[in-house]
Amino acid sequence: MKYNVEVIVSYKKGVLDPQSAAISGAISSLGYQNIENLTISKKFNFQISGREKKEVEEQVESLCRKLLANPVIENYQYIIGEEK
Amino acid sequence: MKYNVEVIVSYKKGVLDPQSAAISGAISSLGYQNIENLTISKKFNFQISGREKKEVEEQVESLCRKLLANPVIENYQYIIGEEK
Repeated sequence: MKYNVEVIVSYKKGVLDPQSAAISGAISSLGYQNIENLTISKKFNFQISGREKKEVEEQVESLCRKLLANPVIENYQYIIGEEK
Repeated sequence: MKYNVEVIVSYKKGVLDPQSAAISGAISSLGYQNIENLTISKKFNFQISGREKKEVEEQVESLCRKLLANPVIENYQYIIGEEK
């Protein structure tokens, strides 16, 4: 069975994100003074095939920890959905 | 009134994304042979204050075109929600 997976990786609170800071600065320079609390996350979408959802969940968890996120400074969350 | 905005920016179909290609390669190297169609998007979250939703929508649209996305190679979509 195939599953659609969405993983969101974002910086933990308190971690300095230079990309967000740069974009926030650019937004101010463009004259938008009414925008605040900008954060940027990465969104990964992929398909994974496996027999059981439990097994797929373990793979996704391991993939997040090993490759998609840096658990020291980033949080991750994922949604696994069965393909229609 | 404050609105919570989420903007998703992703490459258009057919645009080569070296980051996705590199991560797909790394996934294979780690021994996962059952993962396919990996895509990476950027997710921006921010708060915007404005009187009317229509006005906020125009600002978000303009911000996407000018700064958050490159409309030549990227698609964007956004959700604007009223803050609870």
